[in-house]
Amino acid sequence: MTNQAQLLPGTLDLLVLKAVSLGPLHGYGVLLRIEQISGRALLIEQGALYPALFRLVRQGLLTASWGTSQNNRRAKFYELTSAGRKRLDEEAAGWNRLAAAVASALAALPEEI
Amino acid sequence: MTNQAQLLPGTLDLLVLKAVSLGPLHGYGVLLRIEQISGRALLIEQGALYPALFRLVRQGLLTASWGTSQNNRRAKFYELTSAGRKRLDEEAAGWNRLAAAVASALAALPEEI
Repeated sequence: MTNQAQLLPGTLDLLVLKAVSLGPLHGYGVLLRIEQISGRALLIEQGALYPALFRLVRQGLLTASWGTSQNNRRAKFYELTSAGRKRLDEEAAGWNRLAAAVASALAALPEEI
Repeated sequence: MTNQAQLLPGTLDLLVLKAVSLGPLHGYGVLLRIEQISGRALLIEQGALYPALFRLVRQGLLTASWGTSQNNRRAKFYELTSAGRKRLDEEAAGWNRLAAAVASALAALPEEI
């Protein structure tokens, strides 16, 4: 487990939007897609995922519609709306700014200050 | 303000430990040091900083002692303990794992999945 990252609050919604931006997914599929695109480093808990999906639908960033999953069961499929695409771009840019700033801070050496 | 990053919960303690690891600082000095080493991209609010310092002292990760600031005023100075150094290394490694995993996920393209 040591090579897995602890997810910070605020990053789950970003990752859900990113996963769904790659193509429509049912709930469990979102979880698997995030694991896949993070190289198995981010394991999302179902207990956090479903509230996030509900929240993103309510905010108009995802739509949910009934469909049939690969193993022939009815499931809700999630798709990105245009507002969701815009939010994804904004959140990804914000994340990149934060990551660059923290990386810069963590790299500082005593002799440089 | 668009080039500033929104700090996520959980990263403030890491940044405070990092700032103090570079040399003893009084409270406001911690704030200025974080701004400096992040290239002015992370602006910490005093309302968040002082509770973080209090929490880190209580956890034995920092020590606080009275001293005299550059402008000749009495101020509490914070220093990293050996437990604080260990925690800083762990938190920095955890941050780096998270940042790499999120960067990988955000870089995924539809044709790759």
